[in-house]
Amino acid sequence: MTQTDDCILCRIAAGTLPARKIYEDSEFLGLLDVTPCAEGHCLVVPKAHVVRFYDLDEATLGRLFGVVRVVAQKIKQTLQPDFVCVFIRGGRISHLHVAVFPSQQNDALSGFPQSSLGEAAVDLDAVQAKLILLEE
Amino acid sequence: MTQTDDCILCRIAAGTLPARKIYEDSEFLGLLDVTPCAEGHCLVVPKAHVVRFYDLDEATLGRLFGVVRVVAQKIKQTLQPDFVCVFIRGGRISHLHVAVFPSQQNDALSGFPQSSLGEAAVDLDAVQAKLILLEE
Repeated sequence: MTQTDDCILCRIAAGTLPARKIYEDSEFLGLLDVTPCAEGHCLVVPKAHVVRFYDLDEATLGRLFGVVRVVAQKIKQTLQPDFVCVFIRGGRISHLHVAVFPSQQNDALSGFPQSSLGEAAVDLDAVQAKLILLEE
Repeated sequence: MTQTDDCILCRIAAGTLPARKIYEDSEFLGLLDVTPCAEGHCLVVPKAHVVRFYDLDEATLGRLFGVVRVVAQKIKQTLQPDFVCVFIRGGRISHLHVAVFPSQQNDALSGFPQSSLGEAAVDLDAVQAKLILLEE
């Protein structure tokens, strides 16, 4: 978990690239997405270069999602959308960023992710057995 | 936070409706989504009737996303997708459920949420000022 010069979010965390901050503490930033899907579309970002949320320990996840909660409450109180959504994928920037954004009843996100990816023909017995086998 | 008889996820938590469990502890369940968008599409659900993630305290968020992490690691290790996505909205069932599902490079989720909702014309100065004003 080191800062890297070629990572845009590390550069924002280091203060060498500008960003529209709406939250900051010693570990995390809340930023406006500069190409928003809606008014209030934000990103919550750890200052350390972390790639995947599932590599973080439970205490760090608690602090990260504590900040996501603060940002979601700001969006909810200020803009009063029907929903505040959370999305994590990580395809474009390999530095963990949690998207937090407003959504309205019956908008294009109704039924997501099936509405975007479709429904898959899956052998549920087989996948349940595979995933249970990894139980600690 | 009480159990309600007409909530499908409360009924699953109470054991009065069947579900395909892949994780269970005293507070949370990991379930297969029975209409999956991909093999390994899961839901992580608190057993208590909670509506919004941002109503939970930081310690509970840490435990919830600790379970999301366990489920994401199962999906990653078993199915080896490019990404394990997390999505929360809450339009269909008003009992908190965190969707955890595989995604591949260049699938329909590339560029989400803008790819589904489009890019909005937003006055970034104005929204930054609104959201910063709520800072504690």
